[in-house]
Amino acid sequence: MGKADPKESYALGTAGRGLDPRAERSRAAALAAASDLLIENGWAGVTHASVAARSGVGRTTLYRHWPEAAMLIQQLLAELFQVEPVERTGELRADLIGELRSFLRVLHNPKSERALRVIIDQAPLDPRYAEVLSACSCKGTDGLREIVDEAKARGGLPKELDTDVAIDHLLGPLVFRRLISGQEFPDQYVPELVDSFLEPLTP
Amino acid sequence: MGKADPKESYALGTAGRGLDPRAERSRAAALAAASDLLIENGWAGVTHASVAARSGVGRTTLYRHWPEAAMLIQQLLAELFQVEPVERTGELRADLIGELRSFLRVLHNPKSERALRVIIDQAPLDPRYAEVLSACSCKGTDGLREIVDEAKARGGLPKELDTDVAIDHLLGPLVFRRLISGQEFPDQYVPELVDSFLEPLTP
Repeated sequence: MGKADPKESYALGTAGRGLDPRAERSRAAALAAASDLLIENGWAGVTHASVAARSGVGRTTLYRHWPEAAMLIQQLLAELFQVEPVERTGELRADLIGELRSFLRVLHNPKSERALRVIIDQAPLDPRYAEVLSACSCKGTDGLREIVDEAKARGGLPKELDTDVAIDHLLGPLVFRRLISGQEFPDQYVPELVDSFLEPLTP
Repeated sequence: MGKADPKESYALGTAGRGLDPRAERSRAAALAAASDLLIENGWAGVTHASVAARSGVGRTTLYRHWPEAAMLIQQLLAELFQVEPVERTGELRADLIGELRSFLRVLHNPKSERALRVIIDQAPLDPRYAEVLSACSCKGTDGLREIVDEAKARGGLPKELDTDVAIDHLLGPLVFRRLISGQEFPDQYVPELVDSFLEPLTP
């Protein structure tokens, strides 16, 4: 992991490690420019030509790092989709609320939001995007999965509860409102969602 | 409405009416070709050149109908996103299940699904897509909204229930599972979702 094996340098999250400092600087400049272009114009606006023009990095260098624009976008999406770790309280309701609020911040972060929209569009068309979707989907749901599984183990939630279904019920409303209906989230939205999720499941 | 005013011919749902039969045939052939291209390659694959090549309709004609490719895609998306009307039983639980199953068919119809993914990607970048999103979103949620509002009026659901929140809770999980986690829907998925929605709301 992390060595300068050229094949590995496209793998999610390991790219760039093991490059010399100048190559690392041009790679970072190219990714920053590509990130701006992606947010402004969507993935079709990210090409070797547009990234070269915006970053000042030569096209030859760009082609060396990323022989295809889709490779650059793939790597970029994996870096843009950021989820901060949330501190746990050990109390189920509070931890679910904390985790959902963190997911809501992801949906309101312009970089993560754009990344998610691009991935939803492209995943069924291109396996490179499907790979990023799967990585981001894990990153976005791992915390919640852990909370639900621990509660099932400790008796706070029924053992027979399907964790994937629980995740759908908790994150689905946030995604629907943010990406489709485009409405705001009142302060009470998340606590009320958690309460309506917990009520049928807890005595 | 429906007259051959060229400005109006781009309006959602009215395009094509009032054209002479030959123009109508070439318009339909172009839309069918564009639909195939959209499903195969995403919106970036729909250009005047690719639609001309696939449909046999001349580029000049295409430019006359749709001066920009985005206009063609906008019109196409509005036509692709189809929701069948669902028969009502008058019983709240059964009607919610019927409506959610219909929405699930929309998410599994290759045309509607592709349209939705494209719109999610493009709506924040281009007001023409935002307009289609708003039209499709109404088409997709109107039946559910009616059922929830009627139940609130008749006392089957609490009057203070926010109908938009109810729609998030009912459709969000379906959208999340279909577009993000990519998992299958077991037969019991929809009835169990409806039951967990209803349980905290009904005595």
